[in-house]
Amino acid sequence: MIRSCYIVGSGNMAYFLSDAFRRVGIPIAGIYARNSASGTLLAKEFQAEWIPDLRQIPDEADTALFLCVPDQSIETVAEHLSQRTKQLLLHTSGNTPLSVLSAYAAAYGCFWPLASVSKRERTMLTDIPICIEGSDDSVTTSLHVLAGTLSGKVCPMNGSQRSLMHLSAVLTQNFANHLFALADQLCAQHGLDAKLLQPMMHEWTKRLATNNAQDMQTGPARRHDENTLAGHRALLSEHPELLEVYNTLTASIRKMYG
Amino acid sequence: MIRSCYIVGSGNMAYFLSDAFRRVGIPIAGIYARNSASGTLLAKEFQAEWIPDLRQIPDEADTALFLCVPDQSIETVAEHLSQRTKQLLLHTSGNTPLSVLSAYAAAYGCFWPLASVSKRERTMLTDIPICIEGSDDSVTTSLHVLAGTLSGKVCPMNGSQRSLMHLSAVLTQNFANHLFALADQLCAQHGLDAKLLQPMMHEWTKRLATNNAQDMQTGPARRHDENTLAGHRALLSEHPELLEVYNTLTASIRKMYG
Repeated sequence: MIRSCYIVGSGNMAYFLSDAFRRVGIPIAGIYARNSASGTLLAKEFQAEWIPDLRQIPDEADTALFLCVPDQSIETVAEHLSQRTKQLLLHTSGNTPLSVLSAYAAAYGCFWPLASVSKRERTMLTDIPICIEGSDDSVTTSLHVLAGTLSGKVCPMNGSQRSLMHLSAVLTQNFANHLFALADQLCAQHGLDAKLLQPMMHEWTKRLATNNAQDMQTGPARRHDENTLAGHRALLSEHPELLEVYNTLTASIRKMYG
Repeated sequence: MIRSCYIVGSGNMAYFLSDAFRRVGIPIAGIYARNSASGTLLAKEFQAEWIPDLRQIPDEADTALFLCVPDQSIETVAEHLSQRTKQLLLHTSGNTPLSVLSAYAAAYGCFWPLASVSKRERTMLTDIPICIEGSDDSVTTSLHVLAGTLSGKVCPMNGSQRSLMHLSAVLTQNFANHLFALADQLCAQHGLDAKLLQPMMHEWTKRLATNNAQDMQTGPARRHDENTLAGHRALLSEHPELLEVYNTLTASIRKMYG
């Protein structure tokens, strides 16, 4: 049973987890971050002890240490800790195998909220899935309990499933956001505001909860509306990169629906 | 001042507008649809008169006739009506110029809700933009008043702006939905449920209301994370079409952020 948490990092994930645990009454005992300016701010905001040196993070039973650092830094940070014999050592990465932690702790795991985390906007966690993996069954059970305090949706997942889910998050959220950014630019060039599309997008993602995306597909590619496709391509004739995106996704839709 | 509406069609848009006008107390006086089965059902649901013949739709002052039919049928349907001398004749298409109606009515326009309309799920209209265009200023004013009864966001827009906005809707909602459908398939092949991504997507579209998509971009393409990109490409090695989508969008993100 995890009573309190330590955090390494002061970025979006560090902020997100600190905030989430505070809401459910699990204290953040201490924070270390390479960036001491943002780290001390974070520690102050969450009434946590500021720990100026990675090696000073205590190895306490019934606590978890969250490494909220870039993927490529996880193992380096773990190396610089003293060996964890009592504390649960966790990374928060969708795309990192558990094995990177195996040399540095007796008990370790992954705690990955399937959320686009941001310092600026606090996300209510109750419906956000948390993907967990423990180094053994008892760790997985502890993680299940801990994640269950934050979210009603806890998903045990192994490393290859997690990678696949991370890829799917890129395909959906990252790419959809980029498409919106492209539409933003295109609209601005014509004196229009792409923000007008936001209510439709928000409504669509609401419907995703209970509908199948493949069934919900609309638009000219799906209905073989050649006139509209030709008209859109003409509008994009001076935007060759955007035209390539348009053609690639149109071809992919046609392939799906035959 | 439009007191009541007539509708041609019994598809998603016909249902959507009938429902929206009923909510604000503007009656649907009559409905004609080529499909008499779905048309009579719609008429019954909205206490409208079922009109079995297109040529019997009365040409009454202070009413609007909405053509809720596929883009390529708009002009054909308008041709088969008797000439409208008193009634406002409207199409509801994002991608059709106003001129297709000019031969068939003294006063005509476009009334295009920027929404992904569906019979199955009723959309609350209050924040959905309605794009309008009238054949003259007095028609535009009437449309502004009528649209204003449904939505707080009424956008006068000419035909070329409307086409551009329609293209932008395809780039964002249609393509994002397809990406979700692709992720759905990929997840299912690996025993995972892409529905886990829905809360993140819904949160993202909420943030679009107040944030700039270009600033919100995250992911491996933006941060030049070559390891993750290579890992994702390896996962897609047996999905050549999906790999092409991945590569095209990754290249487009890189181009945007340099």
